[in-house]
Amino acid sequence: MRYSDRILSTPSSFIRDILKVTQDPSVTSFAGGLPNPISFPQEALKESACRIIDNEGGKVFQYSTTEGHLPLRRFVADKYNRNFGLNITPEDILITTGSQQALDLIAKVLLNKGDRVIIEEPGYLGAIQAFCMFEPEFMPVTLEDDGLNLEKLEEALKQEHVKFAYVVPNFQNPTGLTYTKERREAVCALFDKYDTVLVEDDPYGELRFKGEKLPYIGAGKLAHSVLLGTFSKTVTPGMRLGFVITQDRELMHHLVTAKQSSDLHTNIFSQYMIADYLAHNEYQQHVDKITALYRTQAEAMLSAMREYFPAHVKYTEPEGGMFIWVTLPEGQSALDLFRKAMEKKVAFVPGDPFYAGKTNVNTFRLNYTNSTPEIIREGIRRLAEVL
Amino acid sequence: MRYSDRILSTPSSFIRDILKVTQDPSVTSFAGGLPNPISFPQEALKESACRIIDNEGGKVFQYSTTEGHLPLRRFVADKYNRNFGLNITPEDILITTGSQQALDLIAKVLLNKGDRVIIEEPGYLGAIQAFCMFEPEFMPVTLEDDGLNLEKLEEALKQEHVKFAYVVPNFQNPTGLTYTKERREAVCALFDKYDTVLVEDDPYGELRFKGEKLPYIGAGKLAHSVLLGTFSKTVTPGMRLGFVITQDRELMHHLVTAKQSSDLHTNIFSQYMIADYLAHNEYQQHVDKITALYRTQAEAMLSAMREYFPAHVKYTEPEGGMFIWVTLPEGQSALDLFRKAMEKKVAFVPGDPFYAGKTNVNTFRLNYTNSTPEIIREGIRRLAEVL
Repeated sequence: MRYSDRILSTPSSFIRDILKVTQDPSVTSFAGGLPNPISFPQEALKESACRIIDNEGGKVFQYSTTEGHLPLRRFVADKYNRNFGLNITPEDILITTGSQQALDLIAKVLLNKGDRVIIEEPGYLGAIQAFCMFEPEFMPVTLEDDGLNLEKLEEALKQEHVKFAYVVPNFQNPTGLTYTKERREAVCALFDKYDTVLVEDDPYGELRFKGEKLPYIGAGKLAHSVLLGTFSKTVTPGMRLGFVITQDRELMHHLVTAKQSSDLHTNIFSQYMIADYLAHNEYQQHVDKITALYRTQAEAMLSAMREYFPAHVKYTEPEGGMFIWVTLPEGQSALDLFRKAMEKKVAFVPGDPFYAGKTNVNTFRLNYTNSTPEIIREGIRRLAEVL
Repeated sequence: MRYSDRILSTPSSFIRDILKVTQDPSVTSFAGGLPNPISFPQEALKESACRIIDNEGGKVFQYSTTEGHLPLRRFVADKYNRNFGLNITPEDILITTGSQQALDLIAKVLLNKGDRVIIEEPGYLGAIQAFCMFEPEFMPVTLEDDGLNLEKLEEALKQEHVKFAYVVPNFQNPTGLTYTKERREAVCALFDKYDTVLVEDDPYGELRFKGEKLPYIGAGKLAHSVLLGTFSKTVTPGMRLGFVITQDRELMHHLVTAKQSSDLHTNIFSQYMIADYLAHNEYQQHVDKITALYRTQAEAMLSAMREYFPAHVKYTEPEGGMFIWVTLPEGQSALDLFRKAMEKKVAFVPGDPFYAGKTNVNTFRLNYTNSTPEIIREGIRRLAEVL
């Protein structure tokens, strides 16, 4: 065979196909996962682009270090230390080409073919796709309203060759669910007991519009804690700037080697640009603006769902982030519903790609960050007609 | 074991360690591989940054397509069609995060553990490192003055599980050698006969300062031809913009899937910026300026080598690119020489990392693009003292 087993076993991108169908401008799409353009501080970024070229000259265009731009790593370290009482240094941070690359690198340095990976069920499809390339056996553990099911998690952790677990503790993609404080502590205790790498991915944590900020599950507590973050949801996804935080020095050493062989280093022009933006602007005020908008949009969607959805349809009520997760009565197919909804010119993402191995599930994902409250309300009304 | 076999078998980066030693400002370093800053059109890029933000707005900051920015792919297609009589379309082009990522993606979609890869001996170390991650068996084929040794190449192609070959036909890194027209044709005929994927990497092709431009080995001729290119050597390496060209649609489909799982898409802000720069400036005039400088620098180094080096030391005479390759008498160690040269405050890269499996070789690489002719002359004089 001409190709590798890994690529032949990777599912074709379901979401891409869906997004193609939903690009018709007459369709109200809740299918995407794009941040609202309000999150791009365009004028400030333009000023930063000019300033770094004027002040730094050739350095912003030359090859650079694999680990990433020091002022940017320092900003990230300071922010997490301040907000979460962590004690990390720039040496604990690797800047990646979006946090998607972090998923690729983690799998690259940890997985042999057939090794096991614990994932949330349902889980983030971009992570499932990235890990798939390294041919693991997935061990999906049910994600409940409060976080991972503890019995199933321990069962999974007891297996051999479990290399790591991947979780999204805040406003998870696709469900919008957030782990409670108690569940975080219980999950942490299990990882401590089994001495397994815990990867916490937190792209949405800053976008909390309700409730109290919670401590991370493993960051600052577990020896093999890995925390992922990104500027995609609060500044710009187009520049592909994410980061890995880990105080496990051996793991970091391997991640840097893998990063070097994958793309040498992350776009240094963009790293300078974002670092300059962060140094010259009030980042938190900007984030607050995004969060306020998402609160309004989420409330519009939830209130329309309360009004129009039949009682047998259940859904999550996120405290932040970008998604709501809907569960149809057992036995119903979200894929069938998708076809009916498209006739009503409303789109969402059927749940299938968020499961490693299940198909024709009764769940689907709604995104609310890219429509006005009026459009959201009207879209939910039309969707309810086919429920 | 906590880590993957692939990462444990990847050699630590020799070059990084060398570059650390040579960062002392009193050292004349011919060790690096950086383009001269003359190649960064700073003011024009600043204008482009402002223009794309003003004209395109949010699009330059939002998530984008995996394949890459269409105007940039169109520019690349047009350039190759015009300069090499090829017949490629934007659909045949995938924009990658530097051409280093292209190496990673190609290995990812083609290699199972133990599959064979043909490489030049000596060969580009970044490629060796990228392929290493997918645990192939390397089949090094001697690179002669005219190109790959044909008998050894055919011997290698006859083996089972040979997935692809990787070659750098113009001003190769590390040797500076260029395949002759005749050798290109003979190599092409062999790949045609054995129906194997040929990956031609051409980062330096536009930097020709002597002799005539030559057609590619396989591009436009072989069904499984893959051609790699980059903007790193002529506009900016810091933005990590490279590209894969292939008319093999099935291979392209798999590369796009692998790219999506690796980092979703290449930095779109930088893609817009470079596309805008190319649309508003005379790219060829800019490239001519770089080439003229490298000609002067290469001539300065070669003339000093003719004057100072003893006759038993051999070296290549490149027609373009950034490197000269030096061969000591058999049995001598370039690593030993490196230590002696560092006492004279002159640095180069000993040949070892350019071989998959050989150590303590008698060859080394010199770079001439980052020193003035005066410094080059003085550095070569001092180096000659320890030869």
